[in-house]
Amino acid sequence: MAVNIYDSAYEMEKAIRSSQEYTNLKKLYDEVNNDPSAKTMFDNFRNIQMQLQQKQMMGEDITQEEVEQAQKTVALVQQHDKISQLMQAEQQMSVVITEINKIIMKPLEALYGAPENQ
Amino acid sequence: MAVNIYDSAYEMEKAIRSSQEYTNLKKLYDEVNNDPSAKTMFDNFRNIQMQLQQKQMMGEDITQEEVEQAQKTVALVQQHDKISQLMQAEQQMSVVITEINKIIMKPLEALYGAPENQ
Repeated sequence: MAVNIYDSAYEMEKAIRSSQEYTNLKKLYDEVNNDPSAKTMFDNFRNIQMQLQQKQMMGEDITQEEVEQAQKTVALVQQHDKISQLMQAEQQMSVVITEINKIIMKPLEALYGAPENQ
Repeated sequence: MAVNIYDSAYEMEKAIRSSQEYTNLKKLYDEVNNDPSAKTMFDNFRNIQMQLQQKQMMGEDITQEEVEQAQKTVALVQQHDKISQLMQAEQQMSVVITEINKIIMKPLEALYGAPENQ
């Protein structure tokens, strides 16, 4: 790989690390993870989310009971101030990463077209 | 998004666009696409590849006949000088993109762990 590609990638990494979105995400992530009851609640929520996603990907049926359990868990974490702030911060970070990817994929898009057009 | 994140992303894009890997890929891509018989052969190869990938993703069976047809098409394109050079260039570009992604995902990996550990 050309040296300036590496350099640019490390510049990009530094820019992400010092961005407001990342520092905010890290702060909230640490706060939630250092609070045992918040951490348990959030881990539980993530596990349920992941289980449902896996079922969906495997084409398995999701029961009404599972849907209701998931909805309850979402409602619960949304009421938790720190967790809902963390989820918002994750969402904002995800938008940034998507934007970055769109920009750096432009050269390949110029050759192969946008992914949604394939 | 913070201004320096955008700046870094555009710097990254420029570095990719001017890299040896990208200029080589673009040259070969144009050569293959401007040669009607090479283009037909390559498009055919890509279509067969995509059909098999889709079948795999949908969990559908791939017949022995389909495997043999795919192998024949691979053998055919590998004998075509320009196409096999293009495929090598795509592979090299893909390595670069993977490396870039690893670097710029380090800050998130620091929080959430590497994808393979999740």
